[in-house]
Amino acid sequence: MSRFGEPQDPVFQKLNASISFDWRLGPYDVAQSRAHASMLAAQGIISDAERDELLSALEEVERELDEGRFPFRPDDEDIHMAIERRVTELAGAVGGKLHTARSRNDQVATDLAMFVRAHALGTADRVTAVMATLVDQAEAHLDWPIPGYTHLQRAQPVYLSHHLLAYFWMLERDRERLRFTAAQADRLPLGSGALAGVNFATDRRAVAAELGFGSVSPNSVDAVSNRDFVLDLLAAAATCATHLSRLGAEIVLWSSEEFGFSELSDAFASGSSIMPQKKNPDAAELLRAKAPRLAAHLVAMHGVLHGLPLTYNKDLQEDKVHVFDAVDTLDLCLDAARGMLEDITFRRSRLAAAAADEFLAATDVADLLVRRGVPFRESHGVVAGLVRRALDEGVTLSELSPEVLAEYSEALDEEFYAVLAEGAWLESKVSEGGTALPRVREQLAQARRVLEDPAA
Amino acid sequence: MSRFGEPQDPVFQKLNASISFDWRLGPYDVAQSRAHASMLAAQGIISDAERDELLSALEEVERELDEGRFPFRPDDEDIHMAIERRVTELAGAVGGKLHTARSRNDQVATDLAMFVRAHALGTADRVTAVMATLVDQAEAHLDWPIPGYTHLQRAQPVYLSHHLLAYFWMLERDRERLRFTAAQADRLPLGSGALAGVNFATDRRAVAAELGFGSVSPNSVDAVSNRDFVLDLLAAAATCATHLSRLGAEIVLWSSEEFGFSELSDAFASGSSIMPQKKNPDAAELLRAKAPRLAAHLVAMHGVLHGLPLTYNKDLQEDKVHVFDAVDTLDLCLDAARGMLEDITFRRSRLAAAAADEFLAATDVADLLVRRGVPFRESHGVVAGLVRRALDEGVTLSELSPEVLAEYSEALDEEFYAVLAEGAWLESKVSEGGTALPRVREQLAQARRVLEDPAA
Amino acid sequence: MSRFGEPQDPVFQKLNASISFDWRLGPYDVAQSRAHASMLAAQGIISDAERDELLSALEEVERELDEGRFPFRPDDEDIHMAIERRVTELAGAVGGKLHTARSRNDQVATDLAMFVRAHALGTADRVTAVMATLVDQAEAHLDWPIPGYTHLQRAQPVYLSHHLLAYFWMLERDRERLRFTAAQADRLPLGSGALAGVNFATDRRAVAAELGFGSVSPNSVDAVSNRDFVLDLLAAAATCATHLSRLGAEIVLWSSEEFGFSELSDAFASGSSIMPQKKNPDAAELLRAKAPRLAAHLVAMHGVLHGLPLTYNKDLQEDKVHVFDAVDTLDLCLDAARGMLEDITFRRSRLAAAAADEFLAATDVADLLVRRGVPFRESHGVVAGLVRRALDEGVTLSELSPEVLAEYSEALDEEFYAVLAEGAWLESKVSEGGTALPRVREQLAQARRVLEDPAA
Amino acid sequence: MSRFGEPQDPVFQKLNASISFDWRLGPYDVAQSRAHASMLAAQGIISDAERDELLSALEEVERELDEGRFPFRPDDEDIHMAIERRVTELAGAVGGKLHTARSRNDQVATDLAMFVRAHALGTADRVTAVMATLVDQAEAHLDWPIPGYTHLQRAQPVYLSHHLLAYFWMLERDRERLRFTAAQADRLPLGSGALAGVNFATDRRAVAAELGFGSVSPNSVDAVSNRDFVLDLLAAAATCATHLSRLGAEIVLWSSEEFGFSELSDAFASGSSIMPQKKNPDAAELLRAKAPRLAAHLVAMHGVLHGLPLTYNKDLQEDKVHVFDAVDTLDLCLDAARGMLEDITFRRSRLAAAAADEFLAATDVADLLVRRGVPFRESHGVVAGLVRRALDEGVTLSELSPEVLAEYSEALDEEFYAVLAEGAWLESKVSEGGTALPRVREQLAQARRVLEDPAA
Repeated sequence: MSRFGEPQDPVFQKLNASISFDWRLGPYDVAQSRAHASMLAAQGIISDAERDELLSALEEVERELDEGRFPFRPDDEDIHMAIERRVTELAGAVGGKLHTARSRNDQVATDLAMFVRAHALGTADRVTAVMATLVDQAEAHLDWPIPGYTHLQRAQPVYLSHHLLAYFWMLERDRERLRFTAAQADRLPLGSGALAGVNFATDRRAVAAELGFGSVSPNSVDAVSNRDFVLDLLAAAATCATHLSRLGAEIVLWSSEEFGFSELSDAFASGSSIMPQKKNPDAAELLRAKAPRLAAHLVAMHGVLHGLPLTYNKDLQEDKVHVFDAVDTLDLCLDAARGMLEDITFRRSRLAAAAADEFLAATDVADLLVRRGVPFRESHGVVAGLVRRALDEGVTLSELSPEVLAEYSEALDEEFYAVLAEGAWLESKVSEGGTALPRVREQLAQARRVLEDPAA
Repeated sequence: MSRFGEPQDPVFQKLNASISFDWRLGPYDVAQSRAHASMLAAQGIISDAERDELLSALEEVERELDEGRFPFRPDDEDIHMAIERRVTELAGAVGGKLHTARSRNDQVATDLAMFVRAHALGTADRVTAVMATLVDQAEAHLDWPIPGYTHLQRAQPVYLSHHLLAYFWMLERDRERLRFTAAQADRLPLGSGALAGVNFATDRRAVAAELGFGSVSPNSVDAVSNRDFVLDLLAAAATCATHLSRLGAEIVLWSSEEFGFSELSDAFASGSSIMPQKKNPDAAELLRAKAPRLAAHLVAMHGVLHGLPLTYNKDLQEDKVHVFDAVDTLDLCLDAARGMLEDITFRRSRLAAAAADEFLAATDVADLLVRRGVPFRESHGVVAGLVRRALDEGVTLSELSPEVLAEYSEALDEEFYAVLAEGAWLESKVSEGGTALPRVREQLAQARRVLEDPAA
Repeated sequence: MSRFGEPQDPVFQKLNASISFDWRLGPYDVAQSRAHASMLAAQGIISDAERDELLSALEEVERELDEGRFPFRPDDEDIHMAIERRVTELAGAVGGKLHTARSRNDQVATDLAMFVRAHALGTADRVTAVMATLVDQAEAHLDWPIPGYTHLQRAQPVYLSHHLLAYFWMLERDRERLRFTAAQADRLPLGSGALAGVNFATDRRAVAAELGFGSVSPNSVDAVSNRDFVLDLLAAAATCATHLSRLGAEIVLWSSEEFGFSELSDAFASGSSIMPQKKNPDAAELLRAKAPRLAAHLVAMHGVLHGLPLTYNKDLQEDKVHVFDAVDTLDLCLDAARGMLEDITFRRSRLAAAAADEFLAATDVADLLVRRGVPFRESHGVVAGLVRRALDEGVTLSELSPEVLAEYSEALDEEFYAVLAEGAWLESKVSEGGTALPRVREQLAQARRVLEDPAA
Repeated sequence: MSRFGEPQDPVFQKLNASISFDWRLGPYDVAQSRAHASMLAAQGIISDAERDELLSALEEVERELDEGRFPFRPDDEDIHMAIERRVTELAGAVGGKLHTARSRNDQVATDLAMFVRAHALGTADRVTAVMATLVDQAEAHLDWPIPGYTHLQRAQPVYLSHHLLAYFWMLERDRERLRFTAAQADRLPLGSGALAGVNFATDRRAVAAELGFGSVSPNSVDAVSNRDFVLDLLAAAATCATHLSRLGAEIVLWSSEEFGFSELSDAFASGSSIMPQKKNPDAAELLRAKAPRLAAHLVAMHGVLHGLPLTYNKDLQEDKVHVFDAVDTLDLCLDAARGMLEDITFRRSRLAAAAADEFLAATDVADLLVRRGVPFRESHGVVAGLVRRALDEGVTLSELSPEVLAEYSEALDEEFYAVLAEGAWLESKVSEGGTALPRVREQLAQARRVLEDPAA
């Protein structure tokens, strides 16, 4: 029996049905139904025998889903209705009792919270794998100099290990965001009913405990309207993807003939349909290319929620489209980043040659003057003058004669030439978090501790 | 002396200069310079006398900024250069020593982290003020029924207090996000230099302690490239604004003649230039309207960072445009939301009439059958049939005769009419987080505890 | 033979391959290959016999694609390679000649331009169908009054026909945008090679003519880098979707019990899993919900192109994800909008009652005073005073006595009561484009002309 | 007299008032008021004497605005009310007649349409200036080879002129978009009143003619709700900014020591606060950085309009924030792009050295085999094998001996070495739109015609 007199229009069904994507919530829906049925029996709302029939049917549904033989039907609107329909096929009329004290509104919010929590943590594990690879590569390239850039201009040399570890700390913050997300998805919506709570003396805390939720949502209206945890996951994913886009962009750059700092393995590159010589860093380009998609999912979800009256509105169905693609895209990017980083080759001689550019020592020369008592702003001006002189004359800094130096400052003596001897420029960066080797070793130890921390 | 031979083009200066907006970082820049100078002296990099001269000049700069008489110059490119220039005017050549062991790159990251931390916490306080207003209004309208809606269709009645508290919990999550942001901005970038660390034995932890940072950034390359805390603030702000947009949209709806549930005070409404009868809920409309702007700031910042090679690039200058407007817009919205909610009038009779719509009790009738042993899915069908019969005959549910009821189910007896007697529909929602009054009172107590928790 | 020594990593393949979505370009790829082969033969680059073998294989490929029996292989990276591979299987070694004087770069740009042009025009046809439905409904409800709203407050009454035609003109502008898009996709990229042009004396204009392009791209570097026509399609789609979101939001509102202006047919609504009385306007909600997704595709594509060096980069592969989903989503929304509008029922009595609200005549009363010589700003104040008096006394405007009127203005005589008699408020809006019936009839005639214009 | 009993709250005023930004509409508001007053008199709605008083006061207002001495007041809510207030101060009570047959709703839509049209065309002129600079630079660097890149890997050489002209055609499309926008803003909203038309026999076509609009809006409800032309301007601006971001990104790349292809003039670069040697391409970085802001304005405006019921809602006030900043930002970027391009220096020797990389001729070698009858796909494999052999042996292609060549294909004879002789690789790209000099000269002539076309 239905309130409706006419069937749905096929175009409307296509627009309305979510089964084509929300089948992914199946395992979570089975788990929550199991916990719900157990609670209903424990509270005396259904009998123990009814519970057992429901649990048994749910077990079969789970097997069918697992094994890819769940009998979907063309008119299944969503996964929740499909599973309830199947339970009733398997268990008979008692199947109709499963939806007692429950609404699709709290049901879908619960499935989605479970999905978000599980995937936030699963993605965090993938992030950890990339972090571990970065630490390995940093150790393998501990003392290889590379130019550090600002404005894509050579600025000061650093060790490649130090540069790679910069990404480690970005990813560590991504893990913090993912864990924050998991905590935001840790309040059980189930038991909120359609919006007002339910007409039965349920035990929400028992359900929460069985499903691994830390607490229950305090307000039923909010519980069925709330998609904050989706925004949190999308925000965390977008930031992580933006980090990977920076990594990808750098590797594209380093793979150019002009930089020549690194080469992807053949396993992460591809060729050209027309130019036989090409080896393209496609994996790195795609890491760069995917970030806008993740940010777009986030802004789309804000758009969906914008100005939406409470409580549940059909608009919320859009949440899944965005969260599923976001999770899949990011996970694939993380796996590709890990594989790409494991296999990448760095070219020591090209890196060393670039990092030996004497202009990179200009700050060190200025600081030499500072140690002689010249205020930094003045010493900066002196060295800027020397740089311009060298550029005008087409020579390097160390090719400037003592006489020329004397024109710029009395404080410039032999140590000027000593400072320009390579190597010291890196080891002199002794401040905490700096690129001097002892500092990088400290940092590596800190990174190892972060990776090994079971509480992290 | 400069490396450059020609002056900057005026068009380029206009594009390049950030002083027109980054003057807001002034107080943070002074504070960090003070801490930096003190540390330089403590480490023997400058003398105590030099430090005192610098601190004295910085004190004067602070007064000038406070009192709006800081002498900005047309060629001040940014606030950092303006302050250093002014310190040198006030203190003489020693002013040139202030930038020892520091770069604009770590300096601007530090100012911005300080700004983000301070504003995240300041905005959280404004959120708290709105939460307190919601609790007050919930207490004042504890037992006023209002229809709860799904799909903007009347679904089940709730108490107005319960509905208002839904926003309380949204805002509580906003505070969690803002505090997470503050924690993300709690690692001191200063001391990272241009990108590689600095050539001096500095004490970054002393600077962190003086400025109230919890720790120091572990990697200098990351420290000057990192704007994650900006993304975190923008994400938190966008979510909060999206919450306010839902509140605004509901109040616009409730202010319509058709709903007639509430009326804004004259202090938060405005009239029409042409239609003398109009009273428009502008404050609520603007709460709705601002959310896309906040989400846009977030997606723009992701765009700025997209594919950006390490470390500092001029692109990062865009961060301030977005974060300043985001903070200002959200703070204004929060203040307006608080004021609007304090003054709003609810119309008890209109709310009561709407909440008394008998169709709102359909679930309760279905649950009555459930208690008689009918599986929920079957009872849902029975009641759907009754609803259709009532609609077809143009009567209310309680006007259906016992004979008609019997056509649909044997289990429908006199209690059917009892259930339809108003009031019970709310009080029967006894589940935790539900709308029954004892549950709302529990929730109010929980909300009060949240507000009073000093650790929160 | 390959430049590469190792196979691709499976994770990379998954990230890199586009065949899972770009198979949709198949028909366009076959068509362009056919035109390309014909041109190669006409120019003497391949022989006529070779052309015939290629054309014959392409014909078979087309049949296989049409009939869903094209033999895709796991290692097909994209549709272009899959088709070339299949042509070679069917035709033998001559298949290897198909890619003469062509690169995947100009090939994919050509396929995509063909797709965009075809879909821009196809979507425009769907827009036309909705426009025709709106005209039909406007004619069917020509003189039904409905309140016009500003700020969701009743403002002035209009005819429902006039309100519905507002959407007609929005959609007419959408058609203009879609046609602009088609024009932007009308320059043939093929023949630009990888980026520099090709080493053969090709005839690009012949290819353009065969494929229906209006001109050839003037610069090969731009031709393979250009995705402006994708941005144009996404912008047009986003604006159209935003229009539909406004329509959807209004119908959600009108479907509420409080407004009660309209009811969707059962074919475009759905029920509740728990509340048997519910009839939810899902179709309208989903029209509202989809707009942010379209806008997100647009912003994502801007993100992909942001800062991307010329010419082709793998990032461009993301274009298809966005354009395919945008087209599918919008087309489905347009079809649903048409169906929903065809079947919708308006409730004349509810509309009439709302539109008879006397306050809606306030402007008319003010204009009465204007015609008596009172400056509008002053007359606006007089009527505002009357409104406040009526509200304070809890009466309607027409219940105010002549004595009360006299307190506010001498110019208020018997005609005040005449103006308040319903109906005149609509017919007095005689300005061009206004709601007076003769004006609406003019507008309907104009709309009919727009629909019938073959050039439009 | 007012409908309201209480003054507005200061927080609400701050949120509500738009005068802080909409003062920019002042000149348009004066112009439309002038046209409106003239029409009112011509239609006999006000007297000629009243018109003259109004026009005289408007003239004075215009002077005050021009000269920066318009007396704004703290309680001016928006520019429309400020101007009407001032007109009344200057002209007396007749000022109150200016708003006859007009509403702020059609008034603001008209001002904004005028602003959008004027700025779309003004920005198009700035685009033209950049296009002219590109043509000049292309002519100045007609035959300078530069490597063309795909995937940022050297692919095939092109002439610098050809590469620069790619941007010319992007910008030409931007002009088309801006002109489309101007056409979309060419329908006069004024005369639509609040939403329903007005109670007077106005002559909208006369007003349109005086203000330079091509037609009048056909539907009053749509006219006051419509902000499509704002979306069109923002879409056009975002695409243009995205083009400039690609230009900026390339120049950043080319300015690196590693590429070394170009150098910005000192007038468009800046130094470092700490590193004296640095010359940073800030102008180019900022061109790159601004695009996400423009795209964000577009997505924000879509957000504002999302789900907004007709007709005017206060939300629309947000339109100006976005459109003003978009116009200002883009215009500044265009001016900076022009200046930067006028002054940029290209380094011929670095370009030539990079473009002489023999691997860039791999396609030409493959095409040599094609001309010998080898199918392209096979010849591509042959050359890929040669490339791998050369890489493995650490030699260039031309250092491979005839004996080695013979191992790969019989068709490889002496012409192999001839093809590898530089120069031919560019001149062989003879297809229309290709980089061969005669083709580039054709293209330059076409570009000149586009620039000189007065109709364009």
